Amino acid sequence: MISSEIAPHLEFKNNGSKIILFVIDGVGGLPLPKTGLTELETARTPNLDRLASKGVTGMSIPVAPGVAPGSGVAHLALFGYDPFTYDVGRGAIAAYGVGLDMEEDDIAVRVNYAGFNSAEAVIDRRAGRLPTEKNVELCKLLRKIKIHDVEIIIETVLDYRSVVIFRGEGLNPDLSDSDPQATGEGVFPHRVVSLKPRSKYAASVANTFIREANEILRSKEVRNIVEMPNGQHLGILTRGYADRPKLPLMQHLYGLENIGVIASYPDYRGIARIVGMDVIYTGYDLEGEFDKLEETFHNYDLVFFHVKGADSAGEDGNFDEKVRVIEDIDKLVPRLEELSPDTVIITGDHSTPATYKGHSWHSVPFILVGKWCRPDGVKKFCESECRRGSLGLFQATEAMLYALGSAGRIDKFRA
Amino acid sequence: MISSEIAPHLEFKNNGSKIILFVIDGVGGLPLPKTGLTELETARTPNLDRLASKGVTGMSIPVAPGVAPGSGVAHLALFGYDPFTYDVGRGAIAAYGVGLDMEEDDIAVRVNYAGFNSAEAVIDRRAGRLPTEKNVELCKLLRKIKIHDVEIIIETVLDYRSVVIFRGEGLNPDLSDSDPQATGEGVFPHRVVSLKPRSKYAASVANTFIREANEILRSKEVRNIVEMPNGQHLGILTRGYADRPKLPLMQHLYGLENIGVIASYPDYRGIARIVGMDVIYTGYDLEGEFDKLEETFHNYDLVFFHVKGADSAGEDGNFDEKVRVIEDIDKLVPRLEELSPDTVIITGDHSTPATYKGHSWHSVPFILVGKWCRPDGVKKFCESECRRGSLGLFQATEAMLYALGSAGRIDKFRA
Repeated sequence: MISSEIAPHLEFKNNGSKIILFVIDGVGGLPLPKTGLTELETARTPNLDRLASKGVTGMSIPVAPGVAPGSGVAHLALFGYDPFTYDVGRGAIAAYGVGLDMEEDDIAVRVNYAGFNSAEAVIDRRAGRLPTEKNVELCKLLRKIKIHDVEIIIETVLDYRSVVIFRGEGLNPDLSDSDPQATGEGVFPHRVVSLKPRSKYAASVANTFIREANEILRSKEVRNIVEMPNGQHLGILTRGYADRPKLPLMQHLYGLENIGVIASYPDYRGIARIVGMDVIYTGYDLEGEFDKLEETFHNYDLVFFHVKGADSAGEDGNFDEKVRVIEDIDKLVPRLEELSPDTVIITGDHSTPATYKGHSWHSVPFILVGKWCRPDGVKKFCESECRRGSLGLFQATEAMLYALGSAGRIDKFRA
Repeated sequence: MISSEIAPHLEFKNNGSKIILFVIDGVGGLPLPKTGLTELETARTPNLDRLASKGVTGMSIPVAPGVAPGSGVAHLALFGYDPFTYDVGRGAIAAYGVGLDMEEDDIAVRVNYAGFNSAEAVIDRRAGRLPTEKNVELCKLLRKIKIHDVEIIIETVLDYRSVVIFRGEGLNPDLSDSDPQATGEGVFPHRVVSLKPRSKYAASVANTFIREANEILRSKEVRNIVEMPNGQHLGILTRGYADRPKLPLMQHLYGLENIGVIASYPDYRGIARIVGMDVIYTGYDLEGEFDKLEETFHNYDLVFFHVKGADSAGEDGNFDEKVRVIEDIDKLVPRLEELSPDTVIITGDHSTPATYKGHSWHSVPFILVGKWCRPDGVKKFCESECRRGSLGLFQATEAMLYALGSAGRIDKFRA
């Protein structure tokens, strides 16, 4: 079942209860052949295990059997939205992630600074992992670009990534990416193409912007800011043209008043803002995230708390690092318990097995702890244990109903 | 899956097999903190346990994750109807429960006799749990009320509860309750308000009826029938205005010819009649219900057999009483087995944990016994065992398909 589709049938009450949705990005894993144990099974996690013992457990399917999800859509599912109904583009997530709001006809797109050779082939899609402060300077220069009848809003995201909003009448987002998602001597940026007739004007705006941006980025001024190796010069690649997301807000769906997000990475703040959450700003440090949670917890009905490290380690194929990140998180779990939330969910948005080096479709361990749990004998937060839990194997889209029901926020349904 | 939505794709055959759907209202529970055992885990239930060993088991989700259902909608789900598609109002359940039938434009509403103080504040929503025989006398008096162009049908339900049908052209049921669902010096009955423009006329009919009923109930004649304490006088509260239910009958859905209901409480007979069941009248005594089952079993393809006590004990927060009720039911189970039904389902409509003192969302233990079961090693009818059963955690709306399939009533689906 899909929480946001069931919700309109229900009556919610604000009983003052507090919910924490704790998402360990990419936490699910696969066994290392030599030990037969996954990352979670390898990690020493006494605190998470205690929560598993107290609560109810299960395994959640991120979006569909066999389907590895992107981060945005995996979080939408956890928030209770049907991932096959609601489409939120990469550009929109980036825009909301840096605090921008989109208007009705806006198009947002992610812009990466990249390294090109003299023949304009794409050599480095990340411009040597450009530092954020250089990105800020480059964005200032790109703000000089003027296109008739179109307002252009440019913001730095992180490292080599920024975001652009095109604002103007008649813009439609059905556009192909210029990013070829490959590099090499023979790989060139694509021209942005309109995928529907109504997007022709938007395609010409995007191509004009890209041309002018690349001109600026080839200038001497830029070469003084960023030194590129092997005769490369900077350019931009665009990816994920998106219109304004049209999702019902979680407040309206679930009768929650104040919902906050604590996430160090902008994209998670973006997806959270799109569904109505307030950003509680934090740094990249795990302890700092917990400090923020303690500081602000009392202001919110629900806090979505996101930690990133396990996913990155999984993507890098670094099993030991993923184990270490999980153990570090576990050490901080008592701080979460001390807040005495009425309901806590601990899970991941998807699996990122270190052996697989990427997001995967595998189901994800899930714990819910609350006053009205019927403990199910599961004593460890890991794949082999949680799959025997009383919630069984279920869709991530059901998690919000479990959270709200457990927190006493759903009225008895009908006579 | 939803049985009534799958059924139109299937071919059913009447092979003469007999099914019993045995519903122990509110049977699911939560552990008592000091023992860690639920009501079912505490109760000595050798007979139910023997059925669990013989059959297949699982846990059923009443209507949706996290959602505690009312009794009507929980039974509709067990009968295979989508609880979010079919809405049966409280008034209609009450009307069908006392044997009334509704016509196309009828509105039915539940009417409670209540105690008011001299300032017309609601002091006792149950009029001191008015005895049924007094209720009968009061209803006779209320039948004197005449409203132009509207036929008024009044019947006693039980204790302080009765039901009224308004019959006439142009009546629509989108009306608010007059019952404030609270009591106290400052709590007054609400005026019935039309929730949609088309219901204005119905609102005026309802308010006229309430005014005239309250006038009669203040009379000396009534004071001679019912003596109210502390200077209170009687009045009525109305709740759950409903139109005629429009559900496909179980006969048509599932190819069953004769379906019977044995339930001591009127509301369960009501919801059963609405889906096409014949009432097999019985008293409030558990043994009497079993007597009726033995007497009439051979006449029916399916009997829905409802026992109420466990739910009431759970609502009262009386853990020991709920255990006792379950043990009493268990003692009678051999009488059910002696009938040799082809398929028996034993489950609850929802959980009513004594610690929670109300209907809850927790999944409910489920047993199906039939000739073609693949026993799953579960040996006790309780939460911690049945959740390891081979049916897993499933939606109550699937139960009818399991019952019909197990009884050999569903033809092979397609080539």
